[in-house]
Amino acid sequence: MNANVSANKDDAVVIGIDFGTLSGRAVAVRVRDGAELATAVHPYEHGVVSESLPATGAPLPPDTALQVPEDYRAVLRNAVPKVLAAGGIAPERVIGIGTDFTACTVLPTTATGVPLCELPGFAGRPHAYPKLWKHHAAQREADDINDLARRRGEPWLPRYGGRISSEWQFAKGLQVLREDPEVYDHTDRWIEAADWIIWQLCGRETRNVCTAGYKGIHQDGAWPGREYLAGLDPRFARFAEDKIAHPLSQLGDRAGGLTAEAAAWTGLPVGIAVAVGNVDAHVTAAAAQTVAPGQMLAVMGTSTCHVMNGTGFAEVPGMCGAVRDGIVPGLWGYEAGQSGVGDIFGWLADGFAPPEYVREAREQGTTVHDVLSRRAAAQPVGGHGLVALDWHSGNRSVLVDHDLSGVIAGLTLATRPEDVYRALVEATAFGTRTILDAFEGSGVPVAELTLAGGLKRNAFVTQIYADVLGRPLHVADSDEAPALGSAIHAAVAAGAHPDIAAASAAMGSTTRDAVLPDPGRTAAYDDLFAIYTELHDHFGRGGSDALHRLRALRNQSLSS
Amino acid sequence: MNANVSANKDDAVVIGIDFGTLSGRAVAVRVRDGAELATAVHPYEHGVVSESLPATGAPLPPDTALQVPEDYRAVLRNAVPKVLAAGGIAPERVIGIGTDFTACTVLPTTATGVPLCELPGFAGRPHAYPKLWKHHAAQREADDINDLARRRGEPWLPRYGGRISSEWQFAKGLQVLREDPEVYDHTDRWIEAADWIIWQLCGRETRNVCTAGYKGIHQDGAWPGREYLAGLDPRFARFAEDKIAHPLSQLGDRAGGLTAEAAAWTGLPVGIAVAVGNVDAHVTAAAAQTVAPGQMLAVMGTSTCHVMNGTGFAEVPGMCGAVRDGIVPGLWGYEAGQSGVGDIFGWLADGFAPPEYVREAREQGTTVHDVLSRRAAAQPVGGHGLVALDWHSGNRSVLVDHDLSGVIAGLTLATRPEDVYRALVEATAFGTRTILDAFEGSGVPVAELTLAGGLKRNAFVTQIYADVLGRPLHVADSDEAPALGSAIHAAVAAGAHPDIAAASAAMGSTTRDAVLPDPGRTAAYDDLFAIYTELHDHFGRGGSDALHRLRALRNQSLSS
Repeated sequence: MNANVSANKDDAVVIGIDFGTLSGRAVAVRVRDGAELATAVHPYEHGVVSESLPATGAPLPPDTALQVPEDYRAVLRNAVPKVLAAGGIAPERVIGIGTDFTACTVLPTTATGVPLCELPGFAGRPHAYPKLWKHHAAQREADDINDLARRRGEPWLPRYGGRISSEWQFAKGLQVLREDPEVYDHTDRWIEAADWIIWQLCGRETRNVCTAGYKGIHQDGAWPGREYLAGLDPRFARFAEDKIAHPLSQLGDRAGGLTAEAAAWTGLPVGIAVAVGNVDAHVTAAAAQTVAPGQMLAVMGTSTCHVMNGTGFAEVPGMCGAVRDGIVPGLWGYEAGQSGVGDIFGWLADGFAPPEYVREAREQGTTVHDVLSRRAAAQPVGGHGLVALDWHSGNRSVLVDHDLSGVIAGLTLATRPEDVYRALVEATAFGTRTILDAFEGSGVPVAELTLAGGLKRNAFVTQIYADVLGRPLHVADSDEAPALGSAIHAAVAAGAHPDIAAASAAMGSTTRDAVLPDPGRTAAYDDLFAIYTELHDHFGRGGSDALHRLRALRNQSLSS
Repeated sequence: MNANVSANKDDAVVIGIDFGTLSGRAVAVRVRDGAELATAVHPYEHGVVSESLPATGAPLPPDTALQVPEDYRAVLRNAVPKVLAAGGIAPERVIGIGTDFTACTVLPTTATGVPLCELPGFAGRPHAYPKLWKHHAAQREADDINDLARRRGEPWLPRYGGRISSEWQFAKGLQVLREDPEVYDHTDRWIEAADWIIWQLCGRETRNVCTAGYKGIHQDGAWPGREYLAGLDPRFARFAEDKIAHPLSQLGDRAGGLTAEAAAWTGLPVGIAVAVGNVDAHVTAAAAQTVAPGQMLAVMGTSTCHVMNGTGFAEVPGMCGAVRDGIVPGLWGYEAGQSGVGDIFGWLADGFAPPEYVREAREQGTTVHDVLSRRAAAQPVGGHGLVALDWHSGNRSVLVDHDLSGVIAGLTLATRPEDVYRALVEATAFGTRTILDAFEGSGVPVAELTLAGGLKRNAFVTQIYADVLGRPLHVADSDEAPALGSAIHAAVAAGAHPDIAAASAAMGSTTRDAVLPDPGRTAAYDDLFAIYTELHDHFGRGGSDALHRLRALRNQSLSS
């Protein structure tokens, strides 16, 4: 047990940092009861790099999404001192730091952890940069990975619902090899940003069991074998053993002590516990008190991630992954996801709301989202005559296909923006229902559903979800639930609580039955959901390849 | 030959009036050469009545579209004097008046032609009003009409592509019977507005061969028989013989002489020739010089109507109708149509263009349509990754199904309003291509295509049409082509030209090869058209009834 904790246990504080898509958020949390003492946000200077490389202005191909590693370090240098100052927290009270990251966000580094894009001569090469989770340009690589795995009957494939995503480590790595073999050759380590940031904090490489399982392909103690990888490309044969393989660390473990350099960046004491890296959604389970089997957590933001523990493994079609110890040690962690949710609502609100809506929002001091929600809220179920497929960013679960795209059906001259807005919200709720049905249909019961993430307090959205799902919804209380979850992991790593479950009970917080379904609307949604399912299966399960052909035409047309 | 013409043939003038959806447009035309001397527009005070009845404020059911007959008379009283004044035309120079109307726009009247809605006690009954062409609430009636006709093998059904539209006289009449039998019983005459306005002008009922054939069900000299009609409803048995039947008048004939009352309204001389009533699209063929077999005319506005003459009858699936003498006496007139075109573009431009687009239009003194077109014009074919079904108002040809609705597929977070706008324009071009393919596939050659209507000068739209269709397009010169066509018919009725073909040659005008296709774009569009066709057939030909189920849910939800 840490000396500080013994000395002054009631006052001990941990820092959690959530590295998101556009910014990093730090929270200072009291170890005893989970009280959030202060928060601070630091936006990434370069945000998501998808149009052109900052260093050279060179245009990037479609579906590219990169980031700049220095933006991550800037969060450590800015958000941590800010959160201490904001909370009036003496640094010596802090006994640990934990982090979580978007995933799979993965980058090539040297053997000492220097990102390749920071090496001389590599700033102008897109493949030297971190590939953000929503980099969707490696679908062909994912297809090849899946085809070969199916042909060979690779035992790990069922653990991923039968399909490896183009978002993950192996597809993105294979894309680097195919498109820039020189960057590939210079890559000593192919590492999740979740683990890379830990390397920055404690000065040593670690690999957490969560991203290794969910975003890498680590199952039953092994990586995909050399023969399989050679079948994808002879030069890829040693990809896993050379660039990825490393002893794995359990979640909640101490990765190491804070280095002097990281202490100088953050203003925290040298040597305090640095928790093993983690993923934003998975770490939130601790904050939302959803660590027992059957407690599903949906982290709803620009996209939605579903995580849930189970007592054993069952194959759920189209889930993202099942990983032993993947959320908490000792249980099987299941993950599923929807690749577009809040960003689909934003697509409409930002791009298709006419001037009177924007004016109304300004005059009432609210957002266009609120104006659209208010106009749509009073509608009877089905009154807009629409059904949409929520595939503007492809489909992660249950189809695992990022070349799919969105569909809206039922449009008439009377269709208004609020109708489309409501249909898009409903479509994402139908997507969630499809995922829950897949779990339950595979013998993995979903006893309850808890919401976290930016959309959890959107009454318009959560009511539609409760009605579509026909079940009460719990809501995690913290507005910084991933960062709180990271702080809880830090407390465990520092030895302040015996394990994640105990720390979650002491430091997490959730309002149960926060949103209740209306039986009449639930019944009406059954009819709309049946139409959604018909379109979902037609466009997503091989009835029509129209969306793939549109995507191919687009790519061909834009590249010629 | 009329006395005026003999006396001063070079100066003789005819008046043409086009009764559109929102206004009536009058044009004064020189008989000798078709010179348009003046035009005048008078908007309908009540426009399209679709929300509530003006007399009572009573709300109307979905898909209702009514009009107010007094608005039509107001055009006679206002636009005609205005056009004479604007052109400095002495009334005695005018030798005839011709009119055209939207169709099927149909109303119930007394035996003397008084609209039922003008009778005491009927102003509050929706079914006492004219039903505008785009009244789409009689789909069930149309379904019953078609089912029974198919079962009985009615010989007229193939003349309408195998399906009677819900827009037409019999479906709308059956709806009146079912929903307001008292109005039905009080209906002495069920008459096209095209014929009713002639009744107002010359004081006697006439029925033109064009609407009788295309919008009624008059074929081979007969109406549907009593036995068939009784099969729909015993009370409907004598619908045709009691309320519709009347000797038919040939197009270009003189319906009668202008009455003293109508002369007082219009300021025109008593007794001048009033031409037989006509339909806006069909009469335009005279103005566009497309009266020979194989010359297809597309009148492109809020909707598009295609008319073309052929030498004999061939069954074209999904065409609206084939009527002998239906465009000019002696030939078979074919009609097809797209129920939504310009209004679909307007739906997006008016309802989904964000503030910066509206601001850009204002700053540049142009329209949102122009801003969207300019942004979309430079795109390579297929670059937006979208395909749309242009069914926001249902599908007239080739599916004849007004319960269909629009679909947009291929949406991503990068999709912008101009992308959707372009996809909607392309969708209507694909719809036109589907119609042309149906004609040619049925042995009715389409030798050339001429455009008229409000969209004919929209270079963005016409270029896409030329590229999608892969053929040069001719463009009718007049901006008032329907009214000019009506004036041409008036000249024939007045005896100033021997027949419609001769009058068209003398008074019409068209620019040939005004828009040429780009072979590269045409080839690229073949791929997109294949995807359009796949979705068209899936949603429109029974692969999926999703759009019908959405429509049923909407109607049920809004009515409960």
